[in-house]
Amino acid sequence: MNYVQIEGGVTAPKGFVAGATYAGVKNPDKKQEKPDVAVLFSETPCAAAACFTKNKFCAAPVLLGREVLKKGKARGIVINSGNANAATGEQGIKDAKAVEEAAEKLLGLGEDEVFVCSTGVIGKRLPYERVIKGVEAIVPNMSKEKGTDAAWAIMTTDTVKKESAYELALSSGTVRIGAMAKGSGMIHPNMATMLVYVTTDAKADPKDLQKMLSAAVDKSFNMCTVDGDTSTNDSIFLLANGASGVEVKTEEDKAALAGLVEHICLDITRRIASDGEGATHLIEVEAYGLPTEQDARLVAKSIAGSSLFKAAVFGRDANWGRIMAAAGYSGADVDPTRADCYLESAAGSIQVMENGFGLDFDEVKAKEILSEHDITVIVRFYQGDGQAKAWGCDLTYDYVKINGDYRT
Amino acid sequence: MNYVQIEGGVTAPKGFVAGATYAGVKNPDKKQEKPDVAVLFSETPCAAAACFTKNKFCAAPVLLGREVLKKGKARGIVINSGNANAATGEQGIKDAKAVEEAAEKLLGLGEDEVFVCSTGVIGKRLPYERVIKGVEAIVPNMSKEKGTDAAWAIMTTDTVKKESAYELALSSGTVRIGAMAKGSGMIHPNMATMLVYVTTDAKADPKDLQKMLSAAVDKSFNMCTVDGDTSTNDSIFLLANGASGVEVKTEEDKAALAGLVEHICLDITRRIASDGEGATHLIEVEAYGLPTEQDARLVAKSIAGSSLFKAAVFGRDANWGRIMAAAGYSGADVDPTRADCYLESAAGSIQVMENGFGLDFDEVKAKEILSEHDITVIVRFYQGDGQAKAWGCDLTYDYVKINGDYRT
Repeated sequence: MNYVQIEGGVTAPKGFVAGATYAGVKNPDKKQEKPDVAVLFSETPCAAAACFTKNKFCAAPVLLGREVLKKGKARGIVINSGNANAATGEQGIKDAKAVEEAAEKLLGLGEDEVFVCSTGVIGKRLPYERVIKGVEAIVPNMSKEKGTDAAWAIMTTDTVKKESAYELALSSGTVRIGAMAKGSGMIHPNMATMLVYVTTDAKADPKDLQKMLSAAVDKSFNMCTVDGDTSTNDSIFLLANGASGVEVKTEEDKAALAGLVEHICLDITRRIASDGEGATHLIEVEAYGLPTEQDARLVAKSIAGSSLFKAAVFGRDANWGRIMAAAGYSGADVDPTRADCYLESAAGSIQVMENGFGLDFDEVKAKEILSEHDITVIVRFYQGDGQAKAWGCDLTYDYVKINGDYRT
Repeated sequence: MNYVQIEGGVTAPKGFVAGATYAGVKNPDKKQEKPDVAVLFSETPCAAAACFTKNKFCAAPVLLGREVLKKGKARGIVINSGNANAATGEQGIKDAKAVEEAAEKLLGLGEDEVFVCSTGVIGKRLPYERVIKGVEAIVPNMSKEKGTDAAWAIMTTDTVKKESAYELALSSGTVRIGAMAKGSGMIHPNMATMLVYVTTDAKADPKDLQKMLSAAVDKSFNMCTVDGDTSTNDSIFLLANGASGVEVKTEEDKAALAGLVEHICLDITRRIASDGEGATHLIEVEAYGLPTEQDARLVAKSIAGSSLFKAAVFGRDANWGRIMAAAGYSGADVDPTRADCYLESAAGSIQVMENGFGLDFDEVKAKEILSEHDITVIVRFYQGDGQAKAWGCDLTYDYVKINGDYRT
């Protein structure tokens, strides 16, 4: 591929700045631990694309974000952690709108030029005045260097900061793309939940951007499960400000940028699954040979989401019966009489099933393979060309602990 | 209702006998712990109904059972624990057929008069000769009293035996109905999994029986989830031998018997959820006011199956945000702006959400409510008359332990 990884995250592309501060969103009396409000800003106008959660109990900022997206010209994003502004009714929308309008004024922007995002506890009113005070403190001091502060501010129970950036050579010049994300589960407890920001200094049409983003999300975040619970707040944004002076016009350049958008989304997907609540393993599932891609997607996601298989991986138990059972109840058109299954990792590869029948395999070797952090499960059918990948993590005592104990 | 609970299980109705023995199905070298082969037999011809798992990787006995069911005249059932005879290919079907034919001979029956059921580890060949030896030992010594031995023999990781029986007054006389079951999860690890046997001495048409059974299963077992994993072996059977001399002919009597079949299925459903792997709570979810019954079923099952909510119940945390998030991603047509939510148990009732907005509730009271074993979650919408109930259990450290550690 014609891209290389570079330092940084959302402010790696030209013309993007950011900042963060502590505003006491969750609890104003708490001693400052880490910033909880972040602002991401493009110095020049942008084309914007976004995808939002399909959960019907979606949060106020998601409802508002859908409206802002319609104009397709947003160039600022305010994000708070500590409070999800979800299940907050009409009041929640007013509160989010107050933050949006205040930010637009402080950033010198017009109507519908700022997205507002919230992540944290569900069902508590957003302390919007505190968020606005945070934005007031951030705006005069934003910089390229503070992109990483923003990535820190949006974390909730994430254990690692999630940023990455790439440089891509197009036919008419070089552009950069950067990303930051938070999410330690497909849904995070009632920490609601996955937020992803992608920026680029390429100049591109918003419709092209939306197409690229939707396709990439379908291959990445939509194939990632930590616990099967879909968040009320999941949102992903792609902002393109054209500051590189490089326009993405030819089909070849569009394909190259789309490829990198997908790559960066897959990268973040793996980091989110890897940092899943309580996770000790990243699980990648590859399904091949299904009648259609949709069948393959169902099979891969069903295996990645099986509580039984996830618990087996935690126990380093090569319990392939659970893998095939999950394929069987996935709803996909699968022929169980002709199926193979392999387990792989850096420690090697082992076949555990052939032609729908369990093999006598080396249990010691299997345990070695499952002792690596990154595990790959491969299921192969012989019904067609449909293939797909999905990502997840193991189910551990710590998942139960974190979620049995979160709110109180 | 015009029925009363009586002692016993599948042999409580007239004309049914049973027996069980230890045959070393899982491991012949292991010291005998509990019986692992059971036979259930009707002394007179039967009408038979059954429902089987929809998992495409269904086990050999399920494939065979579907064939036997077509004749609708089965009067014997052989059940082994310790080996599921699933993912065993053509050989598995031959092995199950060998058990069926041997049992038919030993019981003096004709072709397609015996169902064979297996439960246990997936992917290992069934030691069918050992199962047949078990049947040989059981058949000469079957009795009404040994119904409870059969209930014991079919258990795998179940912690309690599951039997119940009722007597029902119909217009032309009294009939009895009895049941036994195994299952400690919707799917049990690669212990595959839920098996339920219902007998009655009523005389009824097989088509009527199938209708009653399918309707009851839909309201009970199909609304029960422990971990979202659908087994390769789930099967439920209803045998009616007419030994009471009472024929179920009038619509009123059919409705009465159907009501009791549903009642006994709900009874077993609650016991299975309650005995879910690692469970410390039985969770009943009631959904009201949805546009359709199907919407209500989706909402109730989605809540009962949410890993996040299940972990919260384990932690006695009234985390209603997770309840409403699960309703939101259920796929049902839900209006989040008009929804109420209550938590109830023997310790009282508390409203946690009103009109889609979280209430400030008494956390101490909520913890008291969630400290009971049996918990009820009520979600009420205002969109129509659709209502449904679902059952599940909490997600605990022991679930992870049992399933991280099962096979090896």
